[in-house]
Amino acid sequence: MALLKSKVTISDVAKAAGVSNSAVSYALNGKPGVSEKTRDKVLKVADSMGWKPNSAAKALSDASSRAIGLALAYSPETISVDSYSMALFSGMCTELERNNYSLMLRIIPVGGDTMSIHRDWIADGSVDGVVITNVEIGDPRIELYKQHPEVPVVALADPSVTGGLPTLTSDDVAAARLVVDFLHELGHTHIARVAGPERYGHTFGRDRAFIEETSEMGMHYDCLHGDYSPEAGADCTARLMAFSEPPTAIVYDSDSMAIAGLQTAVAKGIAVPEQLSIVSWDDSFVCRAVTPGLTALKRNVPASGKQLVPMLLRQIAGEQVENELEDPYELIPRGSTAAACVPGGVR
Amino acid sequence: MALLKSKVTISDVAKAAGVSNSAVSYALNGKPGVSEKTRDKVLKVADSMGWKPNSAAKALSDASSRAIGLALAYSPETISVDSYSMALFSGMCTELERNNYSLMLRIIPVGGDTMSIHRDWIADGSVDGVVITNVEIGDPRIELYKQHPEVPVVALADPSVTGGLPTLTSDDVAAARLVVDFLHELGHTHIARVAGPERYGHTFGRDRAFIEETSEMGMHYDCLHGDYSPEAGADCTARLMAFSEPPTAIVYDSDSMAIAGLQTAVAKGIAVPEQLSIVSWDDSFVCRAVTPGLTALKRNVPASGKQLVPMLLRQIAGEQVENELEDPYELIPRGSTAAACVPGGVR
Repeated sequence: MALLKSKVTISDVAKAAGVSNSAVSYALNGKPGVSEKTRDKVLKVADSMGWKPNSAAKALSDASSRAIGLALAYSPETISVDSYSMALFSGMCTELERNNYSLMLRIIPVGGDTMSIHRDWIADGSVDGVVITNVEIGDPRIELYKQHPEVPVVALADPSVTGGLPTLTSDDVAAARLVVDFLHELGHTHIARVAGPERYGHTFGRDRAFIEETSEMGMHYDCLHGDYSPEAGADCTARLMAFSEPPTAIVYDSDSMAIAGLQTAVAKGIAVPEQLSIVSWDDSFVCRAVTPGLTALKRNVPASGKQLVPMLLRQIAGEQVENELEDPYELIPRGSTAAACVPGGVR
Repeated sequence: MALLKSKVTISDVAKAAGVSNSAVSYALNGKPGVSEKTRDKVLKVADSMGWKPNSAAKALSDASSRAIGLALAYSPETISVDSYSMALFSGMCTELERNNYSLMLRIIPVGGDTMSIHRDWIADGSVDGVVITNVEIGDPRIELYKQHPEVPVVALADPSVTGGLPTLTSDDVAAARLVVDFLHELGHTHIARVAGPERYGHTFGRDRAFIEETSEMGMHYDCLHGDYSPEAGADCTARLMAFSEPPTAIVYDSDSMAIAGLQTAVAKGIAVPEQLSIVSWDDSFVCRAVTPGLTALKRNVPASGKQLVPMLLRQIAGEQVENELEDPYELIPRGSTAAACVPGGVR
């Protein structure tokens, strides 16, 4: 693609703004070395002269790509029913857009390794910063970015698995307590969970929180792990309900697995919520659309996508950032949960 | 971000492959000037020497960004329930990944103008090619890219609105016929449609196809336009059903509007499918999850996302490409459609 020559030169902007050429360069590249006041002034002057920061930055220097990288390992089938990822993208893009930044998206097959993408990003500077999701225990991406402190990064994970990298965390322990206490109050004494992949740090954190909270409440607790696909949700539900003493409530780590669980229960003649209560971790349009509506843990995922953007931009500007917490979860009770069915007893 | 020095040089690769240094450069940049056979050989040799095409290409030249741009105007709320976009992204990314390309994603607020993003992309070369969706009648993006034939582009639209640009088209006329004929055979004589935004070329094409086909069948036909949001689906359904002689079937241009239509009907005490049949344009997980399941027009959206990638890559390699057709739609009958309810008569 041809580089169109801008009619406005660096010197024009510098002269009009009353600053040096290099100050203009720093400001347009979003690099440190210039005060916020000067940066604002330069951007305003450049804009009024019809020179957009984006192309200006590229014309002046290749140091800034004005893109944030996100690399995911998902099958097309799973990600196209994954409302969490879509909500995250949309929130990120909305906030990036306000700063004239792009999302550089890579989706590799499930089970694949994103490490080579991250190594390329570090080597070729095609992104200015990186977001890491689905952090695993002992994740090699954490080690890689620890070796490259010059690369702005935000991990969406629990700080226990991010090795000191800037982290945006959802309080999953508090959320697990919300759900367990809610089911306990409804009289459930044996609950189960269909969790996400066991290798993810956030799954591990939820696993531990559920074990501790159910133990404290004196409840029985079973757990099977799936991959967020509807197929895994159906399979794990069928297995849990095949026990001689099945649970009276199941909590699912995604709405797609919860919906599949509901369908599996209905197909087996198990009444929801009379014989089985269902809770979805993460609320979505589909939780409200099914019958009965699914009781769900709600968080504002687009807001989290927006929240991580300034954490990256501040690092790109040369600042240190602190770990942050997402807004807390809220439990939305709907028709899929009810008082526990006591075998041979009254409700 | 620092540029890591590769241990393997261009000359090493050229020597091992038995070609010139510039042939290696062309091959790794995905540029014309070298045969497919040589390109394959160079990529294979470079790969075996531990040199990844991506960083190699960037190290050799800035001419290739190895990114494809997609800019959408959507509210975060609407796009996070939009299964079509998610399936399109995932299909595109999967095929781009096989070619070591990224998707450069921009999402601006609904009603906003993506033109400045496209102008920047043309000016600064931050993407190697562009995908245009939701093409409007008289769309300024079409005019812009016609003035820049050097920029590889694929429009997802009907060729009637893409001014000769390479186009990937779904046969919406055939799909409209499928739906109208299906409802006609069920005895419906008055159907309605809750369509997408009127300004989109594909909405216009569907509008025309429905008018022609219902007219040919001697059926009454009403149409209201929404913005794919659940709110619009609910509102248009309420208005259509408030007529003194309401339709006995409604076709929705998205699954999100169809679900909202189903919920609105149920809330008003209108039995689906006994009093109102519902059809969704585009099938999704949620169409199968609700009760009754929604009869839907199914197309393989991830496959369309994959299909457009070689159309771009061939242009990037300097080739001309022909317009292509997506795989045809298929109508999947489910519980939301039934024989028309004849007022005062028998079914």
